[in-house]
Amino acid sequence: MAKFMDVHDGFVGVTREQLEEAHRRDLENEGAEGVHFERAWLDPESGRVFCLSTGPSREAVARVHDKSGHPTTQIYELPVEIG
Amino acid sequence: MAKFMDVHDGFVGVTREQLEEAHRRDLENEGAEGVHFERAWLDPESGRVFCLSTGPSREAVARVHDKSGHPTTQIYELPVEIG
Repeated sequence: MAKFMDVHDGFVGVTREQLEEAHRRDLENEGAEGVHFERAWLDPESGRVFCLSTGPSREAVARVHDKSGHPTTQIYELPVEIG
Repeated sequence: MAKFMDVHDGFVGVTREQLEEAHRRDLENEGAEGVHFERAWLDPESGRVFCLSTGPSREAVARVHDKSGHPTTQIYELPVEIG
């Protein structure tokens, strides 16, 4: 299992409720891929979202987000974590 | 207090020990600005680092990183956090 950070753009003005709904869809779809989305953070001013996950591969993380309707190609594998 | 994610580029091939040293400098410098760096993640392949912090402002976070010798302009305020 590896850890990943992925980044989404275009979420300008999105509310907490809308992010929770998007995250809920990820949690529904993640099991089939062996992925788990741990946390998500939103900057509604820049429209940027960061998602922290664990999973078997970058491609698996991408497939969950694809199924949930918010695809991204910005997925970073994180072999080093501090704190 | 607000939460922030900041992003650094150019850390290709950096080791855990080198990231720990950079993080240690942030911890030395953060107190004067009322900032705390909670976690940091490194993708040594793309050279991207993500730092999660709390603090009074984006500018305060930037000043800590400046003092530590790894400045960045990519600092996102995160009023919404899930998970």
